[in-house]
Amino acid sequence: MATERRRPFWSLSTNRIKLVVAYDGTDFRGWAAQPGQRTVQGTLKEAVRRVSGEDCEIVGASRTDSGAHAEGQVCHFDSGKPIPAEKWVAALNRVLPKDLRVKQANRVSNQFHSRFSALDRTYRYVLYVGPPDPRAERFAHPVSRKLDLGTMQESARVFEGTHDFRAFTEELDPGVENTVRTIFRSRISISRNEVRLTLRGTAFLRGMMRRMAGGILEAGLGRRSPQDLAKLLDPNVRDRLQWPVVLPAAGLTLVRVRYGPHPIDRRDSFED
Amino acid sequence: MATERRRPFWSLSTNRIKLVVAYDGTDFRGWAAQPGQRTVQGTLKEAVRRVSGEDCEIVGASRTDSGAHAEGQVCHFDSGKPIPAEKWVAALNRVLPKDLRVKQANRVSNQFHSRFSALDRTYRYVLYVGPPDPRAERFAHPVSRKLDLGTMQESARVFEGTHDFRAFTEELDPGVENTVRTIFRSRISISRNEVRLTLRGTAFLRGMMRRMAGGILEAGLGRRSPQDLAKLLDPNVRDRLQWPVVLPAAGLTLVRVRYGPHPIDRRDSFED
Repeated sequence: MATERRRPFWSLSTNRIKLVVAYDGTDFRGWAAQPGQRTVQGTLKEAVRRVSGEDCEIVGASRTDSGAHAEGQVCHFDSGKPIPAEKWVAALNRVLPKDLRVKQANRVSNQFHSRFSALDRTYRYVLYVGPPDPRAERFAHPVSRKLDLGTMQESARVFEGTHDFRAFTEELDPGVENTVRTIFRSRISISRNEVRLTLRGTAFLRGMMRRMAGGILEAGLGRRSPQDLAKLLDPNVRDRLQWPVVLPAAGLTLVRVRYGPHPIDRRDSFED
Repeated sequence: MATERRRPFWSLSTNRIKLVVAYDGTDFRGWAAQPGQRTVQGTLKEAVRRVSGEDCEIVGASRTDSGAHAEGQVCHFDSGKPIPAEKWVAALNRVLPKDLRVKQANRVSNQFHSRFSALDRTYRYVLYVGPPDPRAERFAHPVSRKLDLGTMQESARVFEGTHDFRAFTEELDPGVENTVRTIFRSRISISRNEVRLTLRGTAFLRGMMRRMAGGILEAGLGRRSPQDLAKLLDPNVRDRLQWPVVLPAAGLTLVRVRYGPHPIDRRDSFED
């Protein structure tokens, strides 16, 4: 009877594979699989099926929005096939479409979880301020008006620390009540034709990054002060204020997800 | 009777408008309008119609291939509407899709012709040699094998000068017999993850740039020597040799088209 109850043989030799993937989100309906929609999760699941014949659940670190991009999204799945981790990169890239690429594959401990083991996530929102350029505008939000960059710098820092970000999210999903998050770093950097907002934090609420970028853009256009943005983080006064606009997903990129000293099996690892 | 024969009033005040346009060619079936296809020329024609209500012929400097990109394609059209040249940029960009942008508009002399007045054209073909990256691979041809860059540099120079490029084009279009072209400059440059072939020449035969890039890539992979490429330019021996492969259009970008001291009306000009 004990024999009948034990897990099937293949589960004993299951390998948990961690992937780092990059995508141009323009033509995807976001990360999360939805029937009849082209999504990143669904496309990866189908690629794994084509490579190993398995029907694996792909668990992602971050459910990126429809149209948002990734340079370093992380996900994991459990494969029962004896495929070495380093073979997964080329095998998956052979069957994946060009706008979704696997950058790394590692075998990790079965304790590793792409979402729950993550230490922090880094996002970038890019405003494009240069002359018309279809290449740049695919990955940025074009702004033609003059921006006060000093005020934007000051505004970005307002978000650093642990705050209640209720004013920077949309209608809450059922069950989501805690809107307190910690932002470790929030900075503006300026390259030739781009104003880039880069934030690193524990986790992000739905639409939060695009609304923080909206608030900072409003500050750059003279429509808000940094002090006004700070008030949006105060539960006692925020409801008397205009909440920030949400900017389009095209300007948003998930840059990286970091993991700490977790029980990762590094035998097959070729991570940085 | 003379009165009946004279041109309608509006044609007397026709403005020839020169546009500089940029596009991400991935989702276009090339420049040239074709019924039922999304082309750059057709999309521009429709945008002009939406802005001014006119059905104008859009004449381009270069008929770029399906999938090839442009940073500085040039075209012209004749408008009977009193729209100042500088208004065309914003008006067209408002109705154009995001992957096609107007960078400049100038009123030019009716003697100006985007194709026939051009002095030279500059094209770039990019090989991507970095880690998997969907953003880079949209505008470049990925190569994972090791390249001999010195041999590629030497190979690129072989094309400079006036040569018969018959071995670098496909089946000739009826009526096209002259396959002699002048290349002023042909060089390889290397950035972090890209090997870029940049050529400036009078004009290019169909597929010529992608076959020159193919020949240089074959040299970089050790499959040809620069001397072998030079032989392809010799009508007496080329037919005994293997002609180069044609590389995909995704790596090809029309960089700029230059014009000399032509009868351009510069009153409305804000060109560099």
